[in-house]
Amino acid sequence: MTGRLIGVGTGPGDPELLTLKAVRALAEADVIAHFAKRGNSSNARRIVAGHLRLGVVELPLLYPVTTEIARSDDAYGSAIGTFYEEAAASVAAHLEAGRSVAVLSEGDPLFYGSYMHLHVRLANRFPTEVIPGVTAMSGAWSAVGAPIAQGDDVLCVLPGTLPDDELARRLSASEACVIMKVGRNLPRIRRALDIAGRLDEAIYVERATMAEMTFARLSERPDDAAPYFSIVLVPGWSGRR
Amino acid sequence: MTGRLIGVGTGPGDPELLTLKAVRALAEADVIAHFAKRGNSSNARRIVAGHLRLGVVELPLLYPVTTEIARSDDAYGSAIGTFYEEAAASVAAHLEAGRSVAVLSEGDPLFYGSYMHLHVRLANRFPTEVIPGVTAMSGAWSAVGAPIAQGDDVLCVLPGTLPDDELARRLSASEACVIMKVGRNLPRIRRALDIAGRLDEAIYVERATMAEMTFARLSERPDDAAPYFSIVLVPGWSGRR
Ligand SMILES: C[S@@+](CC[C@H](N)C(=O)[O-])C[C@H]1O[C@@H](n2cnc3c(N)ncnc32)[C@H](O)[C@@H]1O
Ligand SMILES: C[S@@+](CC[C@H](N)C(=O)[O-])C[C@H]1O[C@@H](n2cnc3c(N)ncnc32)[C@H](O)[C@@H]1O
Repeated sequence: MTGRLIGVGTGPGDPELLTLKAVRALAEADVIAHFAKRGNSSNARRIVAGHLRLGVVELPLLYPVTTEIARSDDAYGSAIGTFYEEAAASVAAHLEAGRSVAVLSEGDPLFYGSYMHLHVRLANRFPTEVIPGVTAMSGAWSAVGAPIAQGDDVLCVLPGTLPDDELARRLSASEACVIMKVGRNLPRIRRALDIAGRLDEAIYVERATMAEMTFARLSERPDDAAPYFSIVLVPGWSGRR
Repeated sequence: MTGRLIGVGTGPGDPELLTLKAVRALAEADVIAHFAKRGNSSNARRIVAGHLRLGVVELPLLYPVTTEIARSDDAYGSAIGTFYEEAAASVAAHLEAGRSVAVLSEGDPLFYGSYMHLHVRLANRFPTEVIPGVTAMSGAWSAVGAPIAQGDDVLCVLPGTLPDDELARRLSASEACVIMKVGRNLPRIRRALDIAGRLDEAIYVERATMAEMTFARLSERPDDAAPYFSIVLVPGWSGRR
């Protein structure tokens, strides 16, 4: 009997945004796996800390380098690819020994999450379940109280890593937009919003739903420094009746 | 002292996908408001039924007509507009009397949800909080185990009510797509996917995370009848490493 693989969405940061299903999975799993950058503690683990069984086995999966290397970069395929292979093998060892493994994933596991790299390697070999979570974008627009999309609005989710011209073009083409992976891309994102004529609509949200959350109209924020946990919203529907 | 308005995301259907925060809000609110079509019971209320206080005051908000009239239609502005004004007034009456009102919203409240129509009318007059929820799309791709977007993928959310040519054009233009409001639009959605060359990738999910959930590759589903609670996923990232 092999163990069960469970991708567990932890939500965007507020521990109260865990689902009942995630809490139950954390209470029942034999092993809790979590990704972190080497030298950092796992943010997802911090979110669920209050729900871990005392003495539960933990499996930290430590990135060798940043995951934000452009996909085009040759280093991406090798360093990150090897890391995911090894991470999958260490999870598989537990599953083969009959232990269930809950893999923590910030927000929703299958939406730009690291868990996906384990899922594609293991879901065909082991019984697998994915527990969806509240995404960072839902946490952000709810915290700000900004209705994001309604009716016939198109909502486009854009990684801030896209080329400048593509960002600007896509920002013009949809009623509502969300820009993820802001961080050091913020100066470029600001320019793209300006070119698209939408800078005034953009809302910058940092550490949404966490205790240290801040937000501001992007046009009123002088600074271009942004942490990893930041997102930009361009609501498609505000005040329309 | 006026009462507090709380938009409560109920998640896509499985009652275990309620967040801890939603459960607490339901336990504490004085009044529970929920939208339903006249003659139908509220689906959101069904999701949270196990968490309602015995004897809590309920405020059903009953649509006079379908909300799926095209925005261009003149009837939209009048019938629906009047309904939302009256619904907001009945919620406001409780808030003015000092009672907190939790407004149930399937999935996430500010993501194509009816709650938004109350939010834009009341959030500037009363203390307001929005509790994000797991969206229907997250529920759907998790239930199916389909990684939706990763890395530089763009994810586009498309209402099935869009004109045929726009649907087809947008389906070609993004790595990942989600089509909401499927229902009677399914034949047109199928054609648009075919024109965009993406019919083979599309996954149809009905009543995601509910007990009666079904799903299939859209190309292998002969039927074009679809209920209100159906969605189409076009994953942007499948099996890539
Ligand atoms: C690898 S993606 C993970 C997305 C996650 N799986 C989700 O469902 O939202 C990481 C990006 O999500 C965004 N993010 C995650 N948590 C956030 C938060 N609490 N506040 C703002 N942005 C956040 C940032 O843009 C960050 O670069
Ligand atoms: C008015 S929108 C509400 C969306 C919701 N606020 C959310 O966060 O997902 C209604 C549409 O959501 C989709 N939907 C909602 N629940 C669903 C479910 N359980 N399964 C499939 N689709 C669902 C359908 O496409 C439906 O037409």
